[in-house]
Amino acid sequence: MLNFDFYNPTHISFGQDCIAKLDAFVPADAKVMVLYGGQSAQRTGTLAEVQKALGERQVHLFAGVEANPTYEKLMEAVQIAREEKIDFLLAVGGGSVIDGAKFVAAAVPYTDEPWNILLSGGADIKEALPIGTVLTLAATGSEMNNGSVITRKSLQAKLPFHSNFVFPKFSMLDPSKSFTLPERQVANGVVDAFVHIMEQYLTYAVNAPVQDRFAEGLLQTLIEQGPLALSQPDDYEVRANLMWVATLALNGLIGSGVPQDWSTHLIGHELTALYGLDHAQTLAVILPAMMQERRTPKREKLLQYAERVWNLRDGDEKQRIDAAIAQTREFFESLGVKTRLKDYDLEQAAVEAVLKQLEEHGMQQLGEHQDIDLAISRRVLEASL
Amino acid sequence: MLNFDFYNPTHISFGQDCIAKLDAFVPADAKVMVLYGGQSAQRTGTLAEVQKALGERQVHLFAGVEANPTYEKLMEAVQIAREEKIDFLLAVGGGSVIDGAKFVAAAVPYTDEPWNILLSGGADIKEALPIGTVLTLAATGSEMNNGSVITRKSLQAKLPFHSNFVFPKFSMLDPSKSFTLPERQVANGVVDAFVHIMEQYLTYAVNAPVQDRFAEGLLQTLIEQGPLALSQPDDYEVRANLMWVATLALNGLIGSGVPQDWSTHLIGHELTALYGLDHAQTLAVILPAMMQERRTPKREKLLQYAERVWNLRDGDEKQRIDAAIAQTREFFESLGVKTRLKDYDLEQAAVEAVLKQLEEHGMQQLGEHQDIDLAISRRVLEASL
Repeated sequence: MLNFDFYNPTHISFGQDCIAKLDAFVPADAKVMVLYGGQSAQRTGTLAEVQKALGERQVHLFAGVEANPTYEKLMEAVQIAREEKIDFLLAVGGGSVIDGAKFVAAAVPYTDEPWNILLSGGADIKEALPIGTVLTLAATGSEMNNGSVITRKSLQAKLPFHSNFVFPKFSMLDPSKSFTLPERQVANGVVDAFVHIMEQYLTYAVNAPVQDRFAEGLLQTLIEQGPLALSQPDDYEVRANLMWVATLALNGLIGSGVPQDWSTHLIGHELTALYGLDHAQTLAVILPAMMQERRTPKREKLLQYAERVWNLRDGDEKQRIDAAIAQTREFFESLGVKTRLKDYDLEQAAVEAVLKQLEEHGMQQLGEHQDIDLAISRRVLEASL
Repeated sequence: MLNFDFYNPTHISFGQDCIAKLDAFVPADAKVMVLYGGQSAQRTGTLAEVQKALGERQVHLFAGVEANPTYEKLMEAVQIAREEKIDFLLAVGGGSVIDGAKFVAAAVPYTDEPWNILLSGGADIKEALPIGTVLTLAATGSEMNNGSVITRKSLQAKLPFHSNFVFPKFSMLDPSKSFTLPERQVANGVVDAFVHIMEQYLTYAVNAPVQDRFAEGLLQTLIEQGPLALSQPDDYEVRANLMWVATLALNGLIGSGVPQDWSTHLIGHELTALYGLDHAQTLAVILPAMMQERRTPKREKLLQYAERVWNLRDGDEKQRIDAAIAQTREFFESLGVKTRLKDYDLEQAAVEAVLKQLEEHGMQQLGEHQDIDLAISRRVLEASL
C-alpha cells in the first residue's frame, strides 16, 4: 500500500426528507446565497422546500449555473456575493452546481484574478466561504470532496482545482430528489460514478486488498442498480444505493493508498470543452479505448476486474480482458450512453483538435505512470472513433 | 437502506515514518499531555520519536494507561491536566490508550462528577480537549471514531460513551509500529476488528449492497491477512492492510444506513469486567454462540455470509449456516484465540455472574431487534461454555 493522507470532514445527512434538517446545519445568522441550475429546482418544489427550511435567514437566489459550470456565469455570483456580503453558500443540484459553488466560495475572498485559482490547481486558495449542499443528482461525488471542475468558455478550457477549504460543511442526500431526473441524467450519473471508480482501481497492484474490494463492490453495485434506476424510476431503494455509491466513488476513500489514473477524465474534459458532450458521454467514449490501449501496463488489474467484477473466468488472458472491455462498453450502451465518437458526429478532425488542446494544457504525461503522451492519447482517441 | 448521518473529521496520516509529521498537526504553542501504556512505548523508541517530533512544546508524560483503561487511573490524568493547564492530549498506543485519552479529554472541562459521562453515554459532553493519536496496534478503530469504553474497577463496570467532541483531530498510522507487538495482541486485534464488522453486518437485510460488500471485503481481508501477520511478523504490507481494515471496521462507514447488533460486545464487556479476559477473547467466546442462538432471525444474512465470505455453496441451508459458524470459530482458534469459556477456566457460575451484571446494567434488550433478553443471553452464555 502507498502512504496516504485521508481527510474528509463533510457531514452527510442521508435519507428521505433530510432537507428539513437544514435549519440545524446552516448558522442562524447566515446571509445565504442559494445556487442552482435551471427550472427543475423550482418545478420540483425542492427550492421552495429549501427556502422554507432556511426560515427567517436572508436568502439570495442565484439561478442558472450550467452543466459544466462556467467561469463567466460564476463570476456574476462572485460579484453579487461580495456586494451582498454573503457568508454562506448553499448549492442545490448536482455536481455542476456544487462545483460552481466551490469556485464561488474560493473566489469571493480571493484578491487576485480568480482564474488563477484554476491555474494553480487550487493551491493558491487560503480561505473560502462555507458551503452546504442539497444533492439532487447522484454522479460526481462533489458533495463529499474537495474538488471542482470549471469551464472558461472564452478559452474553451475546462480545468480542475482542489482545496480542503472547499469541502462542503454538510451535504443533504435525499434519494427521492432524484426521481424527477431525465433518464439521460440518471444514466450519465451511473457512467460518471463507474469511471470515477475505475480511475482509482484500474492501475497496477500495490497490495491494497481493501481498496480493491471496496472499488469492486461499488462497481458491482452500479452494474446491479444502474439498469434498475432506468427500469424502475420510482424505486427509492435503488436511488438510495446509487446515490451512496456515487458519493463513495469519489470521496477520497477508495483512492487512498493506491495509484490513480485520471487520463480518461482529462482527455474527456477536452471533448466537453470543444464539442459540448456531456461529461459522462466523454468518459463512456474514452474509457473502453483507454482500457484497450493500456492492456499491457494494466494487465494484472484488468484480469482481476474481469474475474471479480464481471465473473469472467473462462478463456485465456487475452479473451478475458477482451470480454471485460466489451462488457464495460455494453454496460454503458445498455444505459443509453453511446461509446463512439462517431455516435456524437465526431471524426478524425476532432482527434486532432483534442490533441491540440491537450498539448496547450500541458496534458502530455497522463496516467498512473505519467507515460501517456500525445502519441498514446492519439491512439486512444483514434480507437474511440 | 435506513436513513443515516455520517460524519468523521479525523485526519488520517498513514505510512511508515508518519510520526515525524506530528509537528505539523499539533498546535505550535500547545501544552501537550502524552498518554501511553506500559514499558513498550519506551522500549520500542516510539515515545522518544514522538517527543522529538513535538520539538520545543511543553510535554507532560502520563504513563500507565491499562488495557481496559480504568476510571481510577484516568482520573489521575484528569487532575494533572487540570493543574498543568494541558490543552492538547496525544495518545500513543492502541485502543485502550486512545479510549482513555477520550475520557480525559471530556472529563477535564466537565464540571460534574466525571463518571456521569459514562452514565449519560456521552450525551452530557459539551466540550473536550483536542486529541491526536499515534497508533501502535490495529484493533479497536478508536483512532478514527467518537467512542470510548471505560472500566470502573470499584464497580466492576465497563461502560461505553460516544461524543463528536472526542473524535481525534488526527491519527498517525504507521504500520511498522506494530512489528514489535506480542503475538497475542496481534491476534486479539484481528478478532476485535472481525467482530466489529460482524456486529454491523450480521443483522437483517435492508437493501444496502454497498455496506454489505464493504463489510464482506473487510472480513475477507482479515481472513487472508490475519494469519500472515502471525507467520510473517515483519511484513509491512500485511501490517498495513490489517491496520487499515481495523480502522475502517469501526469508523462509522460500514454501519451507516444499516441495523447494528452490539450484543456480543455488551455481553463480552461483562466478562472482562468480572474476570479480566482480554476484550477480543470475550468476543471470540460470545460471537459463535450468538450466531448459533440467533440463526433464525439472522438466517438471511448468515447464508449471505456463508456464501460471500467463506465461499460455502454446497449443502442445504442448515449445513451452510453450520459450516459458516464453524469456520468463524476455527478462524479465531487458528489465531490462538480460544472460543470457549472453559478455555478460560470459567464455568456455570460465570454464566450466573454475567447475567447478574447484565441485569444491573440494564442490558436486557440487546441486538438489532432489541429482543435479546436475559433468557436469550443465558442460552448464549451456556452455549459458549
